[in-house]
This record gives sequence, structure tokens and C-alpha cells, in this order.
Amino acid sequence: MPGGEPVSLLDATVDAVRGLDEEAAAAARDRQSRMTKPPGSLGMLETVSEQLAGLSGQCPPPMPEPAALAVFAADHGVHAQGVTPWPQEVTAQMVSNFLAGGAVVNAFAKQVGAEVCVVDVGVAAHLGDAAGLVPRKVRMGTADMTQGPAMSREEAVAAIEAGIETARDLVAAGNRCLLTGDMGIANTTASAALIAAFTGASPAQVTGYGTGIDEQTYAHKVEIVRRALQLHRPDPQDPVGVLAAFGGLEHAALAGFILGGAALRVPVVLDGVIAGAAALVAQAIAPESTAACVAGHRSAEPGHALALEALGIHPLIDLELRLGEGSGAVLALPLVAAAVRALREVATFDSAGVADASASVVSPTERERH
Amino acid sequence: MPGGEPVSLLDATVDAVRGLDEEAAAAARDRQSRMTKPPGSLGMLETVSEQLAGLSGQCPPPMPEPAALAVFAADHGVHAQGVTPWPQEVTAQMVSNFLAGGAVVNAFAKQVGAEVCVVDVGVAAHLGDAAGLVPRKVRMGTADMTQGPAMSREEAVAAIEAGIETARDLVAAGNRCLLTGDMGIANTTASAALIAAFTGASPAQVTGYGTGIDEQTYAHKVEIVRRALQLHRPDPQDPVGVLAAFGGLEHAALAGFILGGAALRVPVVLDGVIAGAAALVAQAIAPESTAACVAGHRSAEPGHALALEALGIHPLIDLELRLGEGSGAVLALPLVAAAVRALREVATFDSAGVADASASVVSPTERERH
Repeated sequence: MPGGEPVSLLDATVDAVRGLDEEAAAAARDRQSRMTKPPGSLGMLETVSEQLAGLSGQCPPPMPEPAALAVFAADHGVHAQGVTPWPQEVTAQMVSNFLAGGAVVNAFAKQVGAEVCVVDVGVAAHLGDAAGLVPRKVRMGTADMTQGPAMSREEAVAAIEAGIETARDLVAAGNRCLLTGDMGIANTTASAALIAAFTGASPAQVTGYGTGIDEQTYAHKVEIVRRALQLHRPDPQDPVGVLAAFGGLEHAALAGFILGGAALRVPVVLDGVIAGAAALVAQAIAPESTAACVAGHRSAEPGHALALEALGIHPLIDLELRLGEGSGAVLALPLVAAAVRALREVATFDSAGVADASASVVSPTERERH
Repeated sequence: MPGGEPVSLLDATVDAVRGLDEEAAAAARDRQSRMTKPPGSLGMLETVSEQLAGLSGQCPPPMPEPAALAVFAADHGVHAQGVTPWPQEVTAQMVSNFLAGGAVVNAFAKQVGAEVCVVDVGVAAHLGDAAGLVPRKVRMGTADMTQGPAMSREEAVAAIEAGIETARDLVAAGNRCLLTGDMGIANTTASAALIAAFTGASPAQVTGYGTGIDEQTYAHKVEIVRRALQLHRPDPQDPVGVLAAFGGLEHAALAGFILGGAALRVPVVLDGVIAGAAALVAQAIAPESTAACVAGHRSAEPGHALALEALGIHPLIDLELRLGEGSGAVLALPLVAAAVRALREVATFDSAGVADASASVVSPTERERH
């Protein structure tokens, strides 16, 4: 553009994010009411089908297949504060495990037919070339958020843009649904700080036991989150500043991944608390980005429920999972696909010659209204 | 057997039902603890994988694929009491819809790769021959349970045996997982009576809004269940008698389907409140049959939660579904398969070269114990 500033990828992406197309969503609601089933009987799956119609601007929406999982991996300087019993090296070791197909999320992805790629946005180790590994390292792990900012603002934007590009590349390759995954020892600590920053909840409310810690470590973890919040006094109106303060690099990349999916009007199924924290960042950057988000599951981390509440979305699965990796997003994929397939394929009362008692059937929602 | 009574199919099936193989279940628990993940982090899916190991007697257990859904269809004499706004003809119309592939459960089954068959155990209409329809009609719908027994004891046993044979035939055809489905206008009323009979809960506790009724119809439905219970004074020690009193024919067939799956050590994924009521019948006939049952979902019907509690099993999905047809069982299939696949395919800490902090990781269960 002559005379104009070059537009950054982040800005261009934010500009492209729109809310739901209300006409397509209304068409989906109407079709749900004429399908051969009692009104409202598909519960939350009706909501998902209407959301995806609104997101795509079409009724019925395209099937969310094929789907791809991006596991964003990074390390955390706050690990030095002793918030987890797992050594930091496990991040890189698990990246190798993902690439070898040996992790839980590989088995789950194989079950549902999703592709897996691993994006190194900040693992604190030199990873060699490997099939399935996308090298987008911004720095060798974040700095310790209790001592200063986890990263610079420029690094935060670079990681966000790595996420946007990952979404763009996966959609360009033909994928019609994006699944969030993450790996980063100590990343529930960074998630807790991010969620506290955006929701205003206290450190004790947002901090959980992560992969499993004893009471003493838990109390210490709460104190670490409190200390970081006191040091940075985060302004939720400045999401890049909040990201820079607490990290991690995978949170930044996930926020970009969500923005990228939203800009392309492709659904993004969120995994657990790390994705929830990242979705709050994305929402603060572009409020309508949440329209692209489906909450795959509710993790056992208390901060996750707070994040989902702030996002206004409801989890599809609640199996007491606390693994991360993208496992909860991957497991939700068949539910999302089933919701869309029902809208696309189920006969209407008229077309199937089934008597419709809907007029006299009272849905629980209507009942509550009376 | 010279001199012996011929053994009935039901008796032979009950004799073959065994509890879980504790050695295989323990091997699964041990393997879960060595897999590259924090201990306990797969939540309820770890429990499912251990159950299926114990059921098959092997660790890891075979994949629950391919899977087949049997939709047992039948009509209910209690429909005459005005417990639902849907006309009785909808049962037969929906059978046609299933066979044409136009129902919700067809779309869901296609999504997860499950076969669908429809078994007519008592639709009150003459159904023609059709591909996918298994003709096992015991009678043209049950009698009205408020006026007398819904069926005779012989009819109840015949319907149970139709269910056993369906399970046997589907497994003989190569299926390694059975999914329960049902269709029968007014069958939440019969389910409520069955659940009250086996759990001792009151009519108001077990009766729900089914596919959607107004407050007046709801109060009437509770009164109908109360009247039927007063008339028959059911003895939970006599499950065939309870079935004969309240029906329906699809409940009897589903109980047989569960017993048949259990006898063949093949998992049976239960749909909602109708399957829950049938599983209570199966449990009363052969207590160890519950070892084969996985609760696919929790339906919105209040009696379902009571049935699951009495069965001691926890639902995998909770999406406010209240459709029936087998929809909740079908949607749970990928979760069951993912649980087994993880146990079969995920690397151990040793094999993957990942540092194991499990010794110092405290699972929530352990935390509660301390």
C-alpha cells in the first residue's frame, strides 16, 4: 500500500476475525427444530452445530475433517522455582516421544484420525530435524517470571505469529478443524498467572496440582504465582504485555493459533487449562476470536473452569483428564464432527414421514422459562 | 446331557457370565503407571482400560472394534394412559427412519464407524422385510402396566433370549464391542417403573420429562408409575417377574443383549435411561454382568443417575442428551477405543527414555488418602 505502514501478520489476522454469521446460525437452529428428534434432545451438540454454522457462514457447515493437532512445546524459566517435581528435560524428551508416536496423544489422534505436528516455539534444548517437527523456536525457554518478564514484547509477538502461521499452513494443507496441544514442564504455573491476570481471580483460585504435587509444593506454587502477579501488576487491556510478563511461548503461539483459525473461520478445539489461558489472551486481542473456539474438555485444574467461564464456553468432555498434550481436544473431535454430521444428514419430520409432536413437546429450556 | 433337563439359552448364558479377571486388570493398572504420562492423568479412561483388560482376561485387551449398535424397538401399552404427546405410530416410523439411514443415530454411527441393526422385539405394527431389520417380534407391543402385567413371564424370557441371540450373532460376525440402542414411544415410563422396582426409589425420583412434556403431563406420568408399582408390588429378587409386570419388550431384549455380551466377554456400551433400567434387570439376573457394562453417557432423565449409581458405573459423556436411539452409546465409542488404544500403544518411561518423576508425583486420589 503506497504510503501506508506495512501491516503486521498479527494486525492483519486480528482485522480478519469476525463474529458468528447470525443468519447461518439461525438457519441451523431452524433445521435442528425440524430434524426427526425431540426438540433440544441433542443438548450441547445442537449448540456446537449452530456455532459452526455461524462460524462458516453456511448451514449446514462443512464437516470439521480432516483435523490436525498442533502441539506447541516450550520451556519455562519459572521451573527454577521448584513448582513441579518433573525435570525440565522432560519437555524435550516428550517432544521426541510425540515424534516417535509413543505419547498418549498420538494414540488418541490415531483413534480419531487426526494429524499431529509438533511446533518448537521455545524448548530449552537444541532439537534436531525430524519429520513432524516444525522449528519455530523464539528463544531457549522463557525467563523466570518471578525475577522479571518471561520474554520481551517482540518475542511474544513472534511466538503469536508462529501460531498464526501454523494455523494458516495446516488449513492450507486441507485441514478443516484445528486442535490445540501443548507441552512445557511448569506450564500450569504460567497458565495460573495468565488466568489470574485476565479474570481477576486470586492465585489460590487459579492454581492447581498440575500433573500431581504434594501440599507443600502446592502452597509454594500459589506463592510463586502471587509473587509474579505482584511484580508485574498485569493490565488485562494489554494482552501482549501480559504474555510477555508471564509467558509461556506456547501460550503465545496457542493464542496465535486460535486467532489464525478464527480469521480463517475454521473451528479450534481447545484442550485444557493451557489452551484456556491462551484463549483468554486471544480474546483480549480480538474479542470475536472466541466464536471459533470449542472447549474440548474440562481439565482437573481449577483455573480452567474460571477460564471457560470467562470465555463463555462449555466443555464437551469431563473425564478428570489432567494430561495436556492436546488429549482432551483430540477426544472431543468425534463429538464435534457428530454434531455437524447430524445437522448435515438427519432427515426432517417432513422428509421422513415421521409424525411431529414437537408443537406439544416442551423442552427443558422452555420449561424453565415458564 | 442324558437324563438332564435341556438347559435354556438364558440359563446357559447366565452360567457363562463371570466377573473381571483380577490379574489382567492389575496388569493394566501396572502398565498405566509405567506409561509416559503423569500417574492417573487419564482419569476415567484408565478405569475403562483396566475394566476391559479384566473383562477380556488380557492385558492389553483387544481393541473394541468393529462395533455394532443394536436398536431394540417395541411399543408400550401404557401409552394409552397419555404419558407422552408422541403418537404410538412414531415407533414404527422411526424404525423406517433408522433403516433409511435418516435418524440422528445413523449419522452418529457413521461418524464413529459403527454398524447399525434394528431388532423388532415388539413394535405394534406389521413391519415388512428390510435390510438391517432383524424380525424378533415377541408380541404387538406390551399390555398397559396399569391394568395388569405388561407381558407374560414366557414373553419376557423370549425377549431376553432375542437379545442374547442378537449379541451372539453380532459377535459371531466379528464385532468386538456392542452398543445398546432403543426405540419405543413411552419407554421412559416403563424405565421409571423398572428403576423404582430395583432401587426402591420413589416414582417422583425416577420419573423424568422424557422427550419433553408439560408439568401437567409430568404429574400424571408420576401418578401412572405410582399406580403400576402399587398394582404389581414388584420383587427385585424376581427380575423376570419385574420385567413381565412393567415391560417393555426392548428392556427385556436389552437385558439379554447385556447378558450375551457379558457371557462372551465383549464390552457393552450402554446408552441412557432405558439401557440403565435394562442393566439393572441384567444385574438382578446375573450380578457379574455389570462387569461388561460401560456407561456411555448420563441422560437428562433423573432415573438414569439412580440406575448408574445402583450399577456402580460412571458415565463417560454428559452433554444433556435426551434422545435415546443409542446416540449416547455411539458417541462414547471413540472414548472407549481411545482408552484401550492408549494402553496398547503408549510408550513406557523406560522404552521412551523419558525421565520419570512419578515416584514424587502425588495423584489426587493419593492426596485424598493422606
